[in-house]
Amino acid sequence: MNNKLLVVGTMAYDSIESPFGKTGKILGGCATYIGLAASQFKTSCTLVSVVGDDFKKSYMDLLKSKGIDLSGVELISGEKTFFWKGKYHNDLNSRTTLDTQLNVLTKFKPKVPDNFKNASIVLLGNLDPNLQGDVLSQMNNPKLVIMDTMNFWIDSYRDKLDEVISKVDVFSLNDEEARQITRTHSLVESAQKLHAMGPSYVIIKKGEHGALLFNGEKIFCAPALPLEEVFDPTGAGDSFIGGFAGYLSQCGRITFEEMKTATIMGSALASFTVQKFGTESLENITPERFNQRIQAFKSLTKFEIELT
Amino acid sequence: MNNKLLVVGTMAYDSIESPFGKTGKILGGCATYIGLAASQFKTSCTLVSVVGDDFKKSYMDLLKSKGIDLSGVELISGEKTFFWKGKYHNDLNSRTTLDTQLNVLTKFKPKVPDNFKNASIVLLGNLDPNLQGDVLSQMNNPKLVIMDTMNFWIDSYRDKLDEVISKVDVFSLNDEEARQITRTHSLVESAQKLHAMGPSYVIIKKGEHGALLFNGEKIFCAPALPLEEVFDPTGAGDSFIGGFAGYLSQCGRITFEEMKTATIMGSALASFTVQKFGTESLENITPERFNQRIQAFKSLTKFEIELT
Repeated sequence: MNNKLLVVGTMAYDSIESPFGKTGKILGGCATYIGLAASQFKTSCTLVSVVGDDFKKSYMDLLKSKGIDLSGVELISGEKTFFWKGKYHNDLNSRTTLDTQLNVLTKFKPKVPDNFKNASIVLLGNLDPNLQGDVLSQMNNPKLVIMDTMNFWIDSYRDKLDEVISKVDVFSLNDEEARQITRTHSLVESAQKLHAMGPSYVIIKKGEHGALLFNGEKIFCAPALPLEEVFDPTGAGDSFIGGFAGYLSQCGRITFEEMKTATIMGSALASFTVQKFGTESLENITPERFNQRIQAFKSLTKFEIELT
Repeated sequence: MNNKLLVVGTMAYDSIESPFGKTGKILGGCATYIGLAASQFKTSCTLVSVVGDDFKKSYMDLLKSKGIDLSGVELISGEKTFFWKGKYHNDLNSRTTLDTQLNVLTKFKPKVPDNFKNASIVLLGNLDPNLQGDVLSQMNNPKLVIMDTMNFWIDSYRDKLDEVISKVDVFSLNDEEARQITRTHSLVESAQKLHAMGPSYVIIKKGEHGALLFNGEKIFCAPALPLEEVFDPTGAGDSFIGGFAGYLSQCGRITFEEMKTATIMGSALASFTVQKFGTESLENITPERFNQRIQAFKSLTKFEIELT
C-alpha cells in the first residue's frame, strides 16, 4: 500500500463560545482538523474541500506548511466560506448551534485529484453522505475506507447514510449516535449491529471517557487523557480520526494491533485540540510534546498482573 | 502488615427491579458485597454489621463458607433487617428508591472484634459517617483506611463526612458525587480538591466508563469491561472497593503500582456483579473464570507504541 491519504470534508470559519471565552471567526472545518492531525505522521495527505474567496490565504499557507496537499480544494469566487457558530454549555459535553451558513457548501462538487485516485486510505469526514459516496465512487480500489458522521446526518439522510456505511471498513461515531442509529443502549450490542451494516471496524467515541474500538469479538478501550481544563471541544472527533488515519497511513499495515495504536494516536491528538480554542494547539505540537503525551497515555493505562 | 481486613457496612434485604426483571427479597448490603468480593483473595476479612432475627441463617452460612469472619455482626432480636427496594431505569445508570426501611440500622452500634483491632486495612463501607468514624476510633493504628460513600451522606451529613474524609487514605466515590462534594466539573480538579481534604488516594468511579485512581500527579485509568448486557448494577461499587481492598490485603504492599492492580481487580469483580441479580454472580466465581476476566481486562487496554 502507498502512504497517500485522501480526506474529504469541510473547511470553515468557526465562531465559538465556551465557558472560558469566545472567539471571532477562526479556522475550522472537519477537513482542516483532520489534515492537521494526520500531518503529525509521515503521510501524503490531500484535502478535498471547498472554500469561498473570503478564505484567508494565510490559512491555506498554514496547511501547506504542514505538508498537506490542497490541489483538491476548490475556491468558488463570489461565494463565502461555510460558517458555523456554536456555544458550549458549562459541562462542555453539550453545545447549541447558534448559526450555520452553508454558503459554498451548497455548491460543493468534490473532485478527487487524479494523482490521489489510487490513495490507499480514504477518510470520509463528517459531511453529507451524498458527498461522501460521491468521493468514494471516484476512488480506485482503496485499501481502507474510514468514515465519520454525526447526528444531523442520521436524522435526515438515513437511507443514503446506510448506503455509504455499507461500503466502509472503519465507521467512527460517538456513543449517542451509535445508540441513535442502532436503537440499542448497550454499546457492545450497538457495535455488533453496526458491524452487520458493513464496517469490520467500529469506533465509538465517548468524549472525556475515551473511545472503544470493535472488530467482531475483539475490543480495545482507549482512555481519554484526564485534563484539568477542557477549553474547547470543537474538532476533537476530527482530530481523533485524523490522527487515527494518519498513523495507519504512515505504518502501512491494516491490523487490529495497529488500529489499537492508531486509536491511542487519535486520542492523543484530540487531547491537544481541546486544550486551546480552534486549531491553535494542533498547529503547535512539537515531536517532544507529542512523545510526552503518548508516554502519558501509556502511564495512564499500564498495569502488571501475573496470572496464577 | 497483617492480612486482616476490617469492613464496616450494611447487611440487608434488597428488592430490585430492572428492565430485565424483578426479584423478591434477596441478600444485599454493602458489607455483604464487599465481603464476597474481598474473599476472592487470601485475606482474613471480618464484617462489622447488624441484622435482625429475620436474617436467613443460610446467608450467614454462605458468607462463612467464603471464609468471612462474622463475629462482629450483631443480631438484634425482635428487630427486622435493613430493607431497600429500588428500580433501575432503562439506561441502568439511574435508579429510584421505592422503599427504605432502616429497621435494625437505627440501633447499630458497631463493635470491632478485639482480634481485628489491629487489622492493617480498614474499609469503611457506604454508611452513616458517624458510624464510619466510630469504627475508625476503635482501631489500633491501621496501615490503610479506605472509605466509600454516596450522595445521601454528602447531602445530609456533610460536616461529619468531611471529618471522616480527613482521616482516610483512600476515598472512593462516583463522578457525580465527586462533582457534588467539590463543586467542580473537571474530575482532575475535583480529585485535587479531594486530596486537599485528606486522602492521598482518590478513586472516582464512572460506572460503565471505568474508574480513575489519583495519587497527586499520578493518574491511572481503569476501563470497565464492555458488557453486552448489564443485568443489575446493585453492589457494583461495593464489589469494586471490596476487590480493591481484598487484593491489597493479600498483596501486603501499599504502593501506587499495587493500587493500579487493585483497581483492575475491583473492576473485574464489579463486572461479575452486574451480570446477575444481587450477589448471585459474585457467589459463583471460579478461579478459572476470574483469570479469564483479568485476561480480558489486559487485552482490552494493552497496546504497544515504540517512541521514536
